[in-house]
Amino acid sequence: MTSLKGRDIISIRDLSKEEIELILSEADKMLPIAEGRETSEILRGKILATLFFEPSTRTRLSFETAMLRLGGGVIGFSTTEGTSVMKGESLSDTIKVVEGYADVIVIRHPYEGSAKLAAEVSAKPVINGGDGAGQHPTQTLLDLYTMKREAGGIDDKIIVLLGDLKYGRTVHSLSYALALFNTEIRLVSPPSLKMPEEIIRDLKELGAKVKEYTSLKEAIRGADILYVTRIQKERFPDPTEYIKVAGSYRIDLTILRDVKESLIIMHPLPRVDEIAPDVDKTKHAKYFIQSFYGVPVRMAILKLILVG
Amino acid sequence: MTSLKGRDIISIRDLSKEEIELILSEADKMLPIAEGRETSEILRGKILATLFFEPSTRTRLSFETAMLRLGGGVIGFSTTEGTSVMKGESLSDTIKVVEGYADVIVIRHPYEGSAKLAAEVSAKPVINGGDGAGQHPTQTLLDLYTMKREAGGIDDKIIVLLGDLKYGRTVHSLSYALALFNTEIRLVSPPSLKMPEEIIRDLKELGAKVKEYTSLKEAIRGADILYVTRIQKERFPDPTEYIKVAGSYRIDLTILRDVKESLIIMHPLPRVDEIAPDVDKTKHAKYFIQSFYGVPVRMAILKLILVG
Amino acid sequence: MTSLKGRDIISIRDLSKEEIELILSEADKMLPIAEGRETSEILRGKILATLFFEPSTRTRLSFETAMLRLGGGVIGFSTTEGTSVMKGESLSDTIKVVEGYADVIVIRHPYEGSAKLAAEVSAKPVINGGDGAGQHPTQTLLDLYTMKREAGGIDDKIIVLLGDLKYGRTVHSLSYALALFNTEIRLVSPPSLKMPEEIIRDLKELGAKVKEYTSLKEAIRGADILYVTRIQKERFPDPTEYIKVAGSYRIDLTILRDVKESLIIMHPLPRVDEIAPDVDKTKHAKYFIQSFYGVPVRMAILKLILVG
Repeated sequence: MTSLKGRDIISIRDLSKEEIELILSEADKMLPIAEGRETSEILRGKILATLFFEPSTRTRLSFETAMLRLGGGVIGFSTTEGTSVMKGESLSDTIKVVEGYADVIVIRHPYEGSAKLAAEVSAKPVINGGDGAGQHPTQTLLDLYTMKREAGGIDDKIIVLLGDLKYGRTVHSLSYALALFNTEIRLVSPPSLKMPEEIIRDLKELGAKVKEYTSLKEAIRGADILYVTRIQKERFPDPTEYIKVAGSYRIDLTILRDVKESLIIMHPLPRVDEIAPDVDKTKHAKYFIQSFYGVPVRMAILKLILVG
Repeated sequence: MTSLKGRDIISIRDLSKEEIELILSEADKMLPIAEGRETSEILRGKILATLFFEPSTRTRLSFETAMLRLGGGVIGFSTTEGTSVMKGESLSDTIKVVEGYADVIVIRHPYEGSAKLAAEVSAKPVINGGDGAGQHPTQTLLDLYTMKREAGGIDDKIIVLLGDLKYGRTVHSLSYALALFNTEIRLVSPPSLKMPEEIIRDLKELGAKVKEYTSLKEAIRGADILYVTRIQKERFPDPTEYIKVAGSYRIDLTILRDVKESLIIMHPLPRVDEIAPDVDKTKHAKYFIQSFYGVPVRMAILKLILVG
Repeated sequence: MTSLKGRDIISIRDLSKEEIELILSEADKMLPIAEGRETSEILRGKILATLFFEPSTRTRLSFETAMLRLGGGVIGFSTTEGTSVMKGESLSDTIKVVEGYADVIVIRHPYEGSAKLAAEVSAKPVINGGDGAGQHPTQTLLDLYTMKREAGGIDDKIIVLLGDLKYGRTVHSLSYALALFNTEIRLVSPPSLKMPEEIIRDLKELGAKVKEYTSLKEAIRGADILYVTRIQKERFPDPTEYIKVAGSYRIDLTILRDVKESLIIMHPLPRVDEIAPDVDKTKHAKYFIQSFYGVPVRMAILKLILVG
């Protein structure tokens, strides 16, 4: 039987479709607790350590809420300011110390591969909360969960991935996960920020239908899900080039005129200018509930890892 | 029947006298739990988010203790260092995300009006933990509670408000609340830091007896309560002027010779030089118990908002 | 009967041998809870305030875990960033405020004597979590507990203290505690960082066998316990002198060839270069379990102080 007890969650690619579906269906059971309508003590006495070597409100706070709503406790730090990391301690030593204080560790770190290293060192399960340009598997899981709940499923959907597809770890992880399902993936980005060739090749090998677009208008025609990500100013040596690009991929009421009635818009947040605020009031906007779904999904993960 | 269930607490002026009295009498019931003599699980499974965009030990720690003593959990941040605010996220987006993680939000923010904005955006109740020059209603409630417990009530009392009455939000909020009771309010401040005319007008319209003094000695004669606030050096272009002013309004044993036996001295803290340390040992000094009363009052507020 | 209920823990020297043994035997009972194999609610409703005026991951996180595993709650701060200390509040005022919010206070502070001052001011028990060059009694207690568990006891052992014996508060506190037991203490340090004469005199008066060495090789012959501490670069005006010294006291596989089979190596952590990473895999290495033992020992202290 599929089980995640004692498992590390480092990359979405370590999880089979069956395991992903187990997490998503466990998240369904967690929903009333995440909404505060029911209480649970299933993780009473257990400790989660949140080691954030790099800031992240969203990931940290939703993991904390997930743990607390299940009756567990939380220790940790939200910046390296005020930690022994400042005294020159190696990551591996920090992990070996913290595993003595906790039952499960969430780590966020600026360097790719840090979470994997932590998992190798630690006898306790490690969850990757984002490691630089690397992976952020719980973000992908909550993205999939949002599709399941708000778009009525993942299979047979047309999904547009928009924005910085070159450097965006969120869309890389997500596209690998989508390739496990029967989906059509439409990629929309400025030419300089296209999805890397090797990822497109991987996705096709996994059996995904992948198409590249430069026109957003064309790509969202008939789409079920529009997944928007941020285009960072820093990626453009020429600021006027940035303004032009950012403008042509901005989601506003005009662009939404010709979309499917049931289109849902997602965004990993924080957003800056990619989605106009008046889109928030439309029935398409699902990015805030998406953010909320981080709670039941992370509850599911903690429960499956710690209790089975 | 008076109820605060699901209510935002943004300004003391949004609360009726009846609602204030409900909170104060609920605080009485909370006292043994706040003192650690009894335990409660009434908020088990509930989550408080403390969003401190500006530092505040006192307000943050007492809200956390209030929540924990009632069996609830706490998430949040104590500075914006390490939050997605740093990535350019709007306050309104931060709130819409955090409301998905918590049952009630306390916000402290350097800009006036932030708490109101947060409350408008959030489907979950928002408590103002101080917004710049604006309001800090839970401070006022704990001030009133201290008067009730330590001065034997609020009605019929003579209350001296001392210090920076021009910029001090604490004394503004407090004086509006006192105007709901049958009190005599004596205002003592340096001429350049007098209570704004429009507030005095408001207070009188509400039926309060208000008198202005420059001599502290005169004002405290016969008073029941002396409420001291800090005069900030930054308010004075001329440092020697500051030293003169600060000196003439400093509370020490000498000034306390001619006061009523039962006079209580309050201060919202932190104090710097306004009250001499040897006053602490007198029976007049109530500022530390006042600070403690923040716990039962905030417990009462959390309980009334979340459970009714 | 020996009891620690309501007691401050400021210096290891305030504790009798009987009291130390009480803590160590209580820690044995806490072990299954610290390991997460059993749960406890013995401190339900109680609040620990962790006031870290100076960073310390290890001490802070292990105290938090200790409190949470026993069902209690934790408030506090991990740097003075974002506290009213920044607004010029005195330590004594901060303590008088926080004692109103908590049942027990752990304080870490850069200045020697701060914890003692805090204890004098506070009506609630205060635990010293390290005050500058001063004391760090819970570190000493977990060191003793590690010896008890991993070296089969403290009495009749030969213990080598290695490193900076002049400024290292850890080795000072530890050596006083060891003098209460029947031990042989061997001191190894560079000539410029020798144990202060007055401490050696004290130890001898307490009945300890103390010997000084400059050769590590000689000192560890026949030893049961090797306690390594960090030699800080800043102690040496000449960097080449530092490199020479650090090199000659570094623990690696070569130096371990001629030691007792059962020798245990301890280190208060964080380590930088004092112990080669390949020592970690030997059966001698006990510094990570030593760090873990901070949890049961701090649980024992919290329980004995709060419940008796």
